[in-house]
Formats: sequence, C-alpha cells, structure tokens
Amino acid sequence: MEYEMEFRLKKRDENTGARAGELQTPHGLVQTPVFMPVGTQGTVKGMSPEELKEIGAEIILGNTYHLYLRPGHEIIREAGGLHRFMHWDRSILTDSGGFQVFSLADLREISEEGVTFKSHIDGSFHFLSPEKSIEIQNALGADIIMAFDECAPYPCDYEYAKRSVELTARWARRCRARHQRRDQALFGIVQGGVYPDLRQKSAVDLVDLDFPGYAIGGLSVGEPKHLMFEILEATIKHLPESKPRYLMGVGSPEDLIYGAALGVDMFDCVLPTRIARHGSVFTHRGRLIIRDSQYMRDFGPLDPDCDCYVCRNYSRAYIRHLIKAKEILGLRLTTYHNLYFLAELMRGIRRSIMEGSFRDFKQEFLASCGTDNNEDNEGDNEGGACE
Amino acid sequence: MEYEMEFRLKKRDENTGARAGELQTPHGLVQTPVFMPVGTQGTVKGMSPEELKEIGAEIILGNTYHLYLRPGHEIIREAGGLHRFMHWDRSILTDSGGFQVFSLADLREISEEGVTFKSHIDGSFHFLSPEKSIEIQNALGADIIMAFDECAPYPCDYEYAKRSVELTARWARRCRARHQRRDQALFGIVQGGVYPDLRQKSAVDLVDLDFPGYAIGGLSVGEPKHLMFEILEATIKHLPESKPRYLMGVGSPEDLIYGAALGVDMFDCVLPTRIARHGSVFTHRGRLIIRDSQYMRDFGPLDPDCDCYVCRNYSRAYIRHLIKAKEILGLRLTTYHNLYFLAELMRGIRRSIMEGSFRDFKQEFLASCGTDNNEDNEGDNEGGACE
Repeated sequence: MEYEMEFRLKKRDENTGARAGELQTPHGLVQTPVFMPVGTQGTVKGMSPEELKEIGAEIILGNTYHLYLRPGHEIIREAGGLHRFMHWDRSILTDSGGFQVFSLADLREISEEGVTFKSHIDGSFHFLSPEKSIEIQNALGADIIMAFDECAPYPCDYEYAKRSVELTARWARRCRARHQRRDQALFGIVQGGVYPDLRQKSAVDLVDLDFPGYAIGGLSVGEPKHLMFEILEATIKHLPESKPRYLMGVGSPEDLIYGAALGVDMFDCVLPTRIARHGSVFTHRGRLIIRDSQYMRDFGPLDPDCDCYVCRNYSRAYIRHLIKAKEILGLRLTTYHNLYFLAELMRGIRRSIMEGSFRDFKQEFLASCGTDNNEDNEGDNEGGACE
Repeated sequence: MEYEMEFRLKKRDENTGARAGELQTPHGLVQTPVFMPVGTQGTVKGMSPEELKEIGAEIILGNTYHLYLRPGHEIIREAGGLHRFMHWDRSILTDSGGFQVFSLADLREISEEGVTFKSHIDGSFHFLSPEKSIEIQNALGADIIMAFDECAPYPCDYEYAKRSVELTARWARRCRARHQRRDQALFGIVQGGVYPDLRQKSAVDLVDLDFPGYAIGGLSVGEPKHLMFEILEATIKHLPESKPRYLMGVGSPEDLIYGAALGVDMFDCVLPTRIARHGSVFTHRGRLIIRDSQYMRDFGPLDPDCDCYVCRNYSRAYIRHLIKAKEILGLRLTTYHNLYFLAELMRGIRRSIMEGSFRDFKQEFLASCGTDNNEDNEGDNEGGACE
C-alpha cells in the first residue's frame, strides 16, 4: 500500500550512525530524531495541547489499550477521531495495545488467534487480536499505527523468544492484511529479546513485509543498559536506511543521545512525565529531586541553563513548596520543564547532526550531565509504558 | 494612616443597592464588584498565573494560615513577597488566618492575647495573635490584608456572639496599631452572627477605627440562605458608602448576583474551583455534573452559551472521559471554565450597573439559571474556606 506518510533522510552523521530527517504525516511535519511525549489516556498528563505546541512537540503518542477500555474507541470514532477528541491537530502515533496487554492487564491466554485478558480498570474480559488492534487504531485515526506484537518478558529463554518472534511475524502479516487506510502508516515491531540472531530474523521477517517504518520493541524492560544498546545496534543494521526507526520506551536524556548515535529516529517514554509528577527534574547537571530540603530557600530556577517558561518564571523554592503541598501547578511545572528539556535536547541533536558536530555535542552533553550510563536499565518501559 | 489603595465609586444602581467601582492597588486596577479566586497555598488550584490573566482575574486571595505553616512566611519574605514567589504581578488579598484557625486547625485555647492551635499538617503547636497575623501578612506583602478576628461558629448563642464581637473589636484595634505598611490596605471584619444588633455594634466599632475597607465575616457558614441575605442587608447599611465591602466565602453565581444587589463589592469562595475538581461545572442553565453517563457521547461544549477556551475547544464527552480517568487536564479544564464563568458573570454585573440595566440582568440570569435560591446554604465557607 502507498501511504501518505513520507520519510525523508536529510543528513547522515559521518562519525556515528546518527541521522537527521523528517516525517511528513497528514497532520504535519515531524523532524527526526524526535522524542514523542506519551498521552496514554488521550492527554499528556498535566499538559494542555497548547503547552505541548509551546515546547515544540510535533507528535505525541496515544495508548490503544487504554483508549479501547476507556472511553472506548467507538466514542472516539464518533467524536471524529483522537485528534479532534483531544484537541490536538498535529501528528499522533498509537501503539498496538500489545505491550500493555502483556505488562499491565491480567493476561489470561495467548493463542495463535490473539490474546484474552482482564481489564485492569474493572476486571472485564476482552480479546485482542491483530485484526482487532488495527480496527481500534483505525477508529482512533492516528497518523502512525503499530502492528500487534507479542512482547516477551525479560528475562526470557531462547526457545520462548524464538516462538514469540515467529508469532509476531505472523501477526504482523495479519495486521498488514487488515489495515486499509492510506492516511495511517503501519509500522512493524522487531522483537527477539536479547538474542542477536533472533533480532536479525525478526527484522528480516518484517522487512519482507515492506512496512513504511520499523519499531524496536522489547527493550528497556529491565535488561542492563549495555545489553540494550548492544541489541539495538545488532537490530538496526538489519533495517533499511530509508525507513524510520522507532525505539520504544526509551526517554532518559543519556539514552536519547546514545540511541540517536546508533541511528534511531523516534523515541517515546513515560519517564520525563512520570518522574516530574514525583518532583524529579532533568537539568544540564543531572537530575534534581526538588523535594530535597536543600532547595527550601533556593530562589534560582530549576535549571540555570534552561530558558523554558518554568525556568524563566519560577524558583526551586516555589516549585518545592508546590510539590510538597501536593499542588497541581507543581506537577504541571515539573512536567512542562522535563518535556521542554527533552524537546530542546532533540533540537540540539538534530542541529548538530545537520551541522556535522553531533559527536562533539554528544560528548559535551554527557560530560555536563555527569552520567557514564553504566547504571542498569531502570525499566522505564515497565508498568505498561503508559501513564 | 494614608493607604496607597484607593476605592472609587463609579455608579450606583437606581433600583437596587448595587454599585460599580474600582480599587486601585499598588499592583493595578481591580474593577468591582469582583469575585476573587482563592489561592490557598500560593496557587489557585489547577491554574497558572497566565490562565488567571486570560480569564481576566485582577485580584486573587492567599491564605495566611496555610502559607504561615507551609512554606513559612519568612521564606516568602526572602523570595521577595508572595507576588514574586508565585509569579503573580496583579493584586493579592490575604486573609488573617483567623477563619482557618477556628475551622480547620485543632483549636486549643482562645484568650484575650490570641489563639493557640495545632497545625492540621504536622500537629505542631502555634500561637496566632492580632500582632502575629499582621506580621505574617506584612511578610507576605499582599495589597489588601485582613484584621485578625474571632469567627464564631454557627449556630452560636447571643452571649457568645456578643463577647466575640467585643473581642474582635479589641483585636482590630491591635491590628491597626501594629500595621505600618502604606502599600497594604488593612480591612476590618464585621462579625455578630445572625443577630442584627450585634452586627450593627460590630460595624460601628470598626467604622470608628476608620479602616479603608470592611469585610462581612461569619456568613455562609451553614445558616439558611434567606438568613444570610437578611443579615448581610442589616450589616451593610451601617457601613460607609465610600469604602469597599467584602462578603467573605460567597461564590455561587446566584449568591454573587444577590450579594451585588445588596451593595457588596468583593467576594471570594472556594466553591467554583472545588466543585470543578469533582467534575461539577456552572452553565447558563444551571450546574452540570460532567461524570453523568448522559454526557458519554455528548460532543457539545460544557456550556453552549460560554465562549471560554474550554467551551471553544473541548467536548463534554472528552472532559467526562478525563474526569473519569482522573486526568489532571480534566480538572484544569473544569476549573478554568468555572472561574471564567464567574469572571464573565461579574463583567456582566458591572456592565449592567454602569448601563443602568442591572435589575434586568439579574432577573434574566436567575431565570435562565433556574434557581430560586430557596435552598439552604451549603456552607461554602466550611472546611476552612481554603483549598
């Protein structure tokens, strides 16, 4: 099928695998590499659509599993689709619901046909299959939709991962057969756990089906960081240069840089918004826990090197007070700042790739952030990669 | 003392006691009658300062009791005062802390000197007196501050109310003696329960002290509505025409109209923001409970007669979904709408007073809202009149 979405590669970095490009969707231009804020239930927690535009977000993510359960995809279809329902006229990507079914719901049975599970909201029984996932995503109407995959747990033995890769390929074929909307680009998802040969097999299977984009799934689920990047590298080399690559569930500043250096074009993660609600913010000198009593009388901004609305107008002391007092504005401000921080980081990554200085940018950023990335994966993707 | 604040009466309605005027404070012009959104802990729950400006708020309220306990008035003084601390450059009024001490804290002892109480946050002991309240309010730096009063409970016998009125007068005198900042206008608070002669005595006592404005306290605390307005009327006639009158703790659309008709210039109440967070919104056809299942597929705005940001961009179905899913944006939108609704109502009241058509405006509004105001007072002022 000829999709309306177009991906244009604009520049390849000479020293790393990084690339800059742009995705043209029916709802506008998305410059890559891009970080996509997560809007699980039809809203990016704490943010208005206008604020998302203010920070420069060009695409956000919606969760099929959640929207299917509540308010229900038929209501969203009747509303005119997710864009209109949530008052967001830029691009949207929806996941397939697979990851949540495997991580969040009470899973009852996996068969060739699909998955039976119990809702985490009211305990009701549901059945999700490749066809059903596409049908729901068609109703939601996102610009980019995902194939329904089996996301194997970590750790997971070789035999299980192998069967899972094979099932995922058969399901991807069924998704492709069912999907008929040209204005929604359907991406395949590469699985294969931490086994390079299975990753290769999965990538080859999916590339055979000629998707307009490919996601790398099943990473950032608890495995050590170094392993995540090894597997990412081993996977990406089997994906076509001309198609966008989307690393699911990754969103710490360091990981975005490392991922971009390996050639990833798209990222999403609940990390920035989730930690914000607990009072943890990104800065150019590492993370800061605003609840700490050391900030009680600190009248400087969250991050002296940030020029966002929050850092221009509010002090650490005030934001600390709001978070301690459980005030809504507190988490609005920390959320805004964290998303701006990542948006600004991605702008820096893109600019430096275009200018040929990405390697320097990467080194400088990592040096000032003071992280060596040796810590283990925190499992940012755990808990359903949704909020 | 000659205060910087000025009150100018611009127009008196011929058919009612209503009046239109303006308060000039060091932080700008406040057109009256005005409804002041409540920002208990240094933020109007759910709203940013920019959004408050967008709805046209010219003055907001801060709670001395809360800010004294957390983060502490010394921190706010160090931050440069409450305006700067919370990034709000328009006018602020702080209450005296009295009402919260009597309604929210664990009250231990009332003496001539002041009040000993236990914090509702951490159980620590504190002492608040007229002098201490002024000292705290000086540190906060609001444009209008309130005398420390004893707010007697409802119901309350005549003897108690009488002693309370006398104590309140002595405390008002001590507040006046302690307060020395010309840029903060100190208002007295009339008490006297539901006894017209005590209300008269309290008003006369305070007018003797020549405050630049007078509040009517101790109403909307559980008494029947008709009694509230009877006492309000009996109190207002003993207050000078040339000074602003502030009815504390009143904020339903109907009560604002009735209060304005009796000559009230200023109101505050947690009602619009509190009910918003529970999914209840004002409309020109009465209140609407957005959680109701009848709105599940209702793609119209909250209020078809409202032109606010929320009503222009979001549907009842979407806002219902957000509130049901406990999403922050849900209560942001209902709060924004409710505050806009009241701001717009006050603009309508002012405009009609200026144009000589207030009586018609009042009748039309009350007819469309479908309320006869015979319901009992819901006790909007209960729970500390703060959020």
